[in-house]
Amino acid sequence: MKRRHLLGATAAVATGAAIAGTLAKPAQNSLLKTGADDKRSDLGAPAISRNRRQLRIATSWPKDFPGLGVMPNRFAKAVSEMTDGVIDIKVYAAGELVGATECFDAVSSGAADMYHAAEYYWQGKSKGFSFFTAVPMGMTSDEIMGWVEFGGGQALWDDLSARFNVKPFQAGNTGHQTGGWFKKKIESLEDFKGLKMRMPGLGGEVIRRLGGAAVRLSGGEIYQALQSGSIDATEWVGPWNDLAFGFYREAPYYYAPGFHEPGASLSVGINLDIWNSFSDSEKAVIKYACASANNASLGEYTYENGIALETLKRDHGIYPQFFSDEIMASIGKISEDVVADLGTSDTITTKIYESYLKARNEQRGWTEMGNGRYVAARRLALDAK
Amino acid sequence: MKRRHLLGATAAVATGAAIAGTLAKPAQNSLLKTGADDKRSDLGAPAISRNRRQLRIATSWPKDFPGLGVMPNRFAKAVSEMTDGVIDIKVYAAGELVGATECFDAVSSGAADMYHAAEYYWQGKSKGFSFFTAVPMGMTSDEIMGWVEFGGGQALWDDLSARFNVKPFQAGNTGHQTGGWFKKKIESLEDFKGLKMRMPGLGGEVIRRLGGAAVRLSGGEIYQALQSGSIDATEWVGPWNDLAFGFYREAPYYYAPGFHEPGASLSVGINLDIWNSFSDSEKAVIKYACASANNASLGEYTYENGIALETLKRDHGIYPQFFSDEIMASIGKISEDVVADLGTSDTITTKIYESYLKARNEQRGWTEMGNGRYVAARRLALDAK
Repeated sequence: MKRRHLLGATAAVATGAAIAGTLAKPAQNSLLKTGADDKRSDLGAPAISRNRRQLRIATSWPKDFPGLGVMPNRFAKAVSEMTDGVIDIKVYAAGELVGATECFDAVSSGAADMYHAAEYYWQGKSKGFSFFTAVPMGMTSDEIMGWVEFGGGQALWDDLSARFNVKPFQAGNTGHQTGGWFKKKIESLEDFKGLKMRMPGLGGEVIRRLGGAAVRLSGGEIYQALQSGSIDATEWVGPWNDLAFGFYREAPYYYAPGFHEPGASLSVGINLDIWNSFSDSEKAVIKYACASANNASLGEYTYENGIALETLKRDHGIYPQFFSDEIMASIGKISEDVVADLGTSDTITTKIYESYLKARNEQRGWTEMGNGRYVAARRLALDAK
Repeated sequence: MKRRHLLGATAAVATGAAIAGTLAKPAQNSLLKTGADDKRSDLGAPAISRNRRQLRIATSWPKDFPGLGVMPNRFAKAVSEMTDGVIDIKVYAAGELVGATECFDAVSSGAADMYHAAEYYWQGKSKGFSFFTAVPMGMTSDEIMGWVEFGGGQALWDDLSARFNVKPFQAGNTGHQTGGWFKKKIESLEDFKGLKMRMPGLGGEVIRRLGGAAVRLSGGEIYQALQSGSIDATEWVGPWNDLAFGFYREAPYYYAPGFHEPGASLSVGINLDIWNSFSDSEKAVIKYACASANNASLGEYTYENGIALETLKRDHGIYPQFFSDEIMASIGKISEDVVADLGTSDTITTKIYESYLKARNEQRGWTEMGNGRYVAARRLALDAK
C-alpha cells in the first residue's frame, strides 16, 4: 500500500501531470515569527537573539524518494543547521501542499515560499526552462554546472525566472540517465520503427522522429504496461532508481548510453519577495546550502548507481547493452534538430539556447579528451588484467 | 618579477618541497575577540550580537592562482558571508605563513587554524593520505566524492587525520588531469624507455617502471628544462593551468588521457581543538562552505579547461594526441601494482586502500556505462554532422 502510494506520487513527477486531488492551498502566512530566542551560545555562535522564521518548500518528489526526494531534505537541514534553526524550512512532498508540477505557480504567487523541482516542468511557461534541467545530446552534470556558474547561464536563468517572481539556484543533479529497458535487442535504426517506448518530453520527440511511438506514462504505470505488452520499452532514471521498480524482470535489455538527460540538474526556486526579504547573510546561507545539496547529489548518485548496477549484474544477470555508433549518430542528429526547434520558441529561449549550445561546444572537447578518454582507458586497462 | 614569484611559489606545490625562507611563525592567538557587535539586522538575520572571530587558513597555493588558489578564497568568502563576518578567515598563500607543504604541521600544532591543500603532500606522515587526493588509475572526481561521502571514506579520513589533531573535509577538485606535453610522439611502450619526464609522486614511479626517468621539478623550472632539453616531457594540471605556462611551444604533443591524477581532490583541514571549539551552527557553516567550494571547483575547472583547450586548438594549432590502448593497458597494470605496494605501508593505509579499491570497483561500471559511454557517443554523433 505504501509502495502503491510511492508509485502514484512518482507518477506525477514523471509525466508532468499534477497529482490528483491536491490543489494549491490558499497562501498562508509564511513569516511566522515565534518570538525572540535569547539563549546565548558559546564562542560567538551564529544564532542568538533572533526571531525564528518558518518557510515552506513545495517539491516535485514523493516523500524521501531516493535521490530526488532527499535533496530538498538535505537543503533544508543545511539551512537549519547553519542558522541554529532560525530559518526552519518544512519540506512538502508532491501532493502535500501542491501537485508535483504546480510548485512553480505556488512559489510565483506566494502560496509556497520555495520549490525543489526540475525546471523543464515549467516549459509551459517558456521553453527556455528546459535548458536548465537537460536536453537531448546536451551537457553533462559538470558541464551544466560550468555553464550556469561560469558561462553566463545563471544571469539568463535569473532573467527568465524573475519574470515569474522567482529566484532560482542549482540544487541537485541526477548525473547521467540511462538509455532504458527494452524487451528485445536494439541492433539497428529499423528496430525503433513502431517501437512503443515510454519516454516523455524532448526525448519522446526524438523517439517519434525515429519512427517509434513515444508513450507518456507515470512511473507507477510503467511496470504494468511492460507486463501487459502495451509498451515495448521504457526509460526511467538510472540503476539506483530503476532497480527499485524491477523493470529488469519485464524488459531485460538495459541499454546505454542515454541521450535524453545526460546530467539532469534540479533546482530550488524562491519567491522573489521572500528572497528580497532576506538579509545578506541569509541569502548566503540559502545560496551555499543549494550548492552543498548539488555537491552531495553528484557523489550520491554516482555511488548508489554504481552499487545498484553491480547488484543488477550479480543478482539478476543484467549486463549493459550498448547502442551502435550508427544508432547514436542518428539519435544525435535528430536530437540537435529537436533542440534547435525548441530554441526558436521565443526571444529569451533563443538567447538561452544560443548560450547553452556555445557552452556545450566549448566544454565538450575537454570532457572528451579528459574524463571521457580516461574512463574508457581505465576500463580497457582494468578489464584486461 | 611578479611572474617569477608566482612560479616560485607554484614550484613548491608541485615538488612537495617547502618554500625556502618561510618557516612556521609561532602560534598566535587565533581567537581574537573584537568585542560585541550589537547592531540588529532586519528580518531575523543570522548575525547579530556576537563576537567576531578571526581565523587563519594556510594554503599550498600561490596567491589567487587560477583554480587552486581561488578555492580557499571562495571557502573563506562563503563563511564570512554566511556569518556576517563573525567568522573571518584570512587566507595565506604558500610562503606567507608557512611553506606549501608545511600547512599540515602548522595546523596540527595550532600555528595555523586551517589549511587548504592536497592530502598527498602529507604522505610522509602516512601513505594513506594519498588516497584522499588521487592515485594512478584511481577514481574520477564524482567517484571520490561518492566514496568519501557515501562509501565510508570520510570515517577513515577522520580517523587518520585525528591522529594528527586535524579534522578534514573535501573542498575542491581539479577534475581530470591531462597526460602531459611531449617533444616527440609516443607511439609504443618503447618510446617511454629513457624518456626524461617531469612527473612527481606515484605517477613518477609508474614512469620509472616503464623504463623512463621521472624527474622532480618545480612548476617554475619546467619550461626552462623543456627548452634546454634536460627533460623530454612534462605533466602539469590541465589545459587551463597548462596554457598559462606555454608548454605547447616546447613540447607540442599534448597527450590524453592522464592516468596519474584522474580527479584530484583538494581539502580543508582544521585544527581539532579549533574544530571542537565551534558551536554546532559554526561547524555546519564550515562544513557546507567546504561542500560549496568543492561544487564550484567542478564547474569552474570544466568550463575553464574547455575554453583553454579551444584556445590551444584555435590560436596555437594544438590538437590532442591519444595514448594507444596497448600503452594504457600497460600503464594500468603498472599503476595497480604501484598503488597496491603503497597500500601495504601501514595498518590504517591498508584499510584505506581496501576501502578505496572496493569503492572504485563498485562505481566504475556505472561511470563507464553512463557518463563514459555518453561522452564518447556524443563526440561521434556531433563530429559526424
